[in-house]
Amino acid sequence: MSRISEPSVRRLSHYYRVLEEVAAEGKRMISSHLLAEREGITSAQVRKDLSSFGSFGRRGLGYHVEHLRDEIRALLGLDRRWRACVVGAGHIGAALLGYRGFADQGFDLVAVFDADADRIGRTLEGRVVRPVSQLSAKDGFEIGVIATPVRAAQEVADALVAAGVQGILNFAPRKLRVPDSVTLRAVDMTMEFESLSYALTHARAGRLSAGRVRRRPPRGRPRA
Amino acid sequence: MSRISEPSVRRLSHYYRVLEEVAAEGKRMISSHLLAEREGITSAQVRKDLSSFGSFGRRGLGYHVEHLRDEIRALLGLDRRWRACVVGAGHIGAALLGYRGFADQGFDLVAVFDADADRIGRTLEGRVVRPVSQLSAKDGFEIGVIATPVRAAQEVADALVAAGVQGILNFAPRKLRVPDSVTLRAVDMTMEFESLSYALTHARAGRLSAGRVRRRPPRGRPRA
Repeated sequence: MSRISEPSVRRLSHYYRVLEEVAAEGKRMISSHLLAEREGITSAQVRKDLSSFGSFGRRGLGYHVEHLRDEIRALLGLDRRWRACVVGAGHIGAALLGYRGFADQGFDLVAVFDADADRIGRTLEGRVVRPVSQLSAKDGFEIGVIATPVRAAQEVADALVAAGVQGILNFAPRKLRVPDSVTLRAVDMTMEFESLSYALTHARAGRLSAGRVRRRPPRGRPRA
Repeated sequence: MSRISEPSVRRLSHYYRVLEEVAAEGKRMISSHLLAEREGITSAQVRKDLSSFGSFGRRGLGYHVEHLRDEIRALLGLDRRWRACVVGAGHIGAALLGYRGFADQGFDLVAVFDADADRIGRTLEGRVVRPVSQLSAKDGFEIGVIATPVRAAQEVADALVAAGVQGILNFAPRKLRVPDSVTLRAVDMTMEFESLSYALTHARAGRLSAGRVRRRPPRGRPRA
C-alpha cells in the first residue's frame, strides 16, 4: 500500500464520496456492486481496490459504510488538517480561496501571495494578499498551490520548495521541475473537456450510425 | 469501443499528451513501456487500452507516434471544434475564459452569461457578459459550462438543457439532474488536493517508519 497508482487514488476519492453520501442517508452497509454502480466501474475493480488495503466485505452483506469511510479517510490523509498557501491572486486563486469545500476536507488555504504591487495588501476572500518575496519556512506551509501565469510558475515552484512545502498543486499549464522529495500534481482542465467531448462524440456516433465506433477485431499483430 | 469507463478516457487523454510531446520532440515510434513510464501505469494496461480500440504496436518497435496521436485525437473528439458557453461570470468563469489551452484543443468558449445585473454588459476576457435569460437554442451551443454559485446551478442546468446543449461541465459543488440524453461531467477540485494529501501521507509514513502503511495480509474473509 505504500504506492498505488494515481487512478487508484482517484477511485479511492470516489468511493469516499459515495460512502459519505450513503452514510448521510443512514445506510449501514454497502455492496461492492453499489459502490461500482455509482461510479461506473466494475464491482471486481472495487473489491480489488479495497482488498489491496486489507478491507474485505462480507458476502451478501458488503462493506460496513462508516468503517470503510474512516479507513479511506485515513488512507487519503484526510483525518488531519493541511496547511496550504496559494500563490497568485488572480481568478484561479480567488476561485480556490472562495471555495469552502477545501476546509471541509481538511485543506486550510491560510495565505495568498502575489508579485503584483497592485494586488499586494488587498483583501481577497478574507485573506490579505502578501508579497511573494515573503514566502518562507516560518509560515510552515505543507502544500503550495500555484495559480500564477505560466511565465512565473517555475520561479514560484522554486520559492515554495525553498519555503519547505512537501507538495505542490500546479494550475499553470506548464511542466515544472521540483526535487524528488516534493510531490507535484498538475491540474489540467482540458482533460475535463476531453472527457465530455469523448462522450459526446460516441453518443452522437451511436445515435447516427450504431456500430460505427464499435471495437474493431484484432488484426493479429504481435504486442508492442 | 462505444463505451469505455471514465478512467480509461482519462488515460487516453494522458497518452494523447505524451504523444503530442513526443511528436514535438521529433520521435517516430514509442513503446508501450515508455507510454506507461511517463504516466506511472503498467505497460500491460497501455497495451490493453490501445488494443481495445484496435491499435496494435509492433514488438520491438512500438507504436507509430503520429498515427496513434491522430487516432486518439479522433477518439476523444478533438479532430473538430466544439461550441461552448460559460454560465457564471465570477472567478471560475473568468479563469476558464482566460485559458487559451481550451481553444488549442478545439473548445471554443464563445459566450458568457450571468444573472447579475452588475455583471451583464461588462466585458470579461474579451466577451460581453449576456443575461442568462438570453440562453437559447439559436446560439447552437453544444457544451455548457456551469460556473455559478451552488444555489443557481440546477436552474442553469435546466436552462442549458432547454437551449439544446449535449454536454454540461459542472464546477458548482452539487449534484445536478439532467436528462439521459445530456452528458454531465462534474469537476471536483477537492480530488486534486486529495491526490496530494494521499501522496504526502504515505511519503511521510514511509520516511518515519518504513512498513507502517504496507499492505496488510488478507484476513481470509469471503468477498463482498
